[in-house]
Amino acid sequence: MIVRNQSGERKDAGQGVARKILARGGELMMVQVFFEKGAVGAVHGHPHQQVSYVVSGAFELEMDGVKDIVRDGDTFYVPSSVPHGVVALERSVILDIFTPQRQDFLK
Amino acid sequence: MIVRNQSGERKDAGQGVARKILARGGELMMVQVFFEKGAVGAVHGHPHQQVSYVVSGAFELEMDGVKDIVRDGDTFYVPSSVPHGVVALERSVILDIFTPQRQDFLK
Repeated sequence: MIVRNQSGERKDAGQGVARKILARGGELMMVQVFFEKGAVGAVHGHPHQQVSYVVSGAFELEMDGVKDIVRDGDTFYVPSSVPHGVVALERSVILDIFTPQRQDFLK
Repeated sequence: MIVRNQSGERKDAGQGVARKILARGGELMMVQVFFEKGAVGAVHGHPHQQVSYVVSGAFELEMDGVKDIVRDGDTFYVPSSVPHGVVALERSVILDIFTPQRQDFLK
């Protein structure tokens, strides 16, 4: 159940965003998301709960209409269905963990 | 619901291990664990499911009786109640995400 850093397919999500599915199983899925500077994760919501960890870089995070800056090492929790989105202020990487798994990412 | 890198209390868990609770809510809890070189996370199990991300360093990981080495950027999934443990091969940091939350860490 180990997923190596080097393994896994980086899937282009368009407009400067790419996604790699890391370890997952049962009710948990870990996904690494790569942003070019200025790339946008548009505000969206999903029934899944989420915690995120900024691996590197910085984002403007909008959650439930409130904007804030998050930098490497910062973390946040997104409750079910709360609208959230990010704008990468520099080239950045974030780790998103979902419960349950994002079946839409497996297609 | 943002937890800053600089905030949060690093709690000494003894014998070269310290723990900091990061973002959490609902059914998710993110915990950063700091290991001195040689420090041990003894083999244990819990009903919570877990995914882990090696932030820095390297560990010998034992899961369900099988040993392997995991390094920075590697990730793994621990199913409910599967015995697992680590030995830090160098000074290392790991990110553990649990569902549901580890109420025992909040005491």
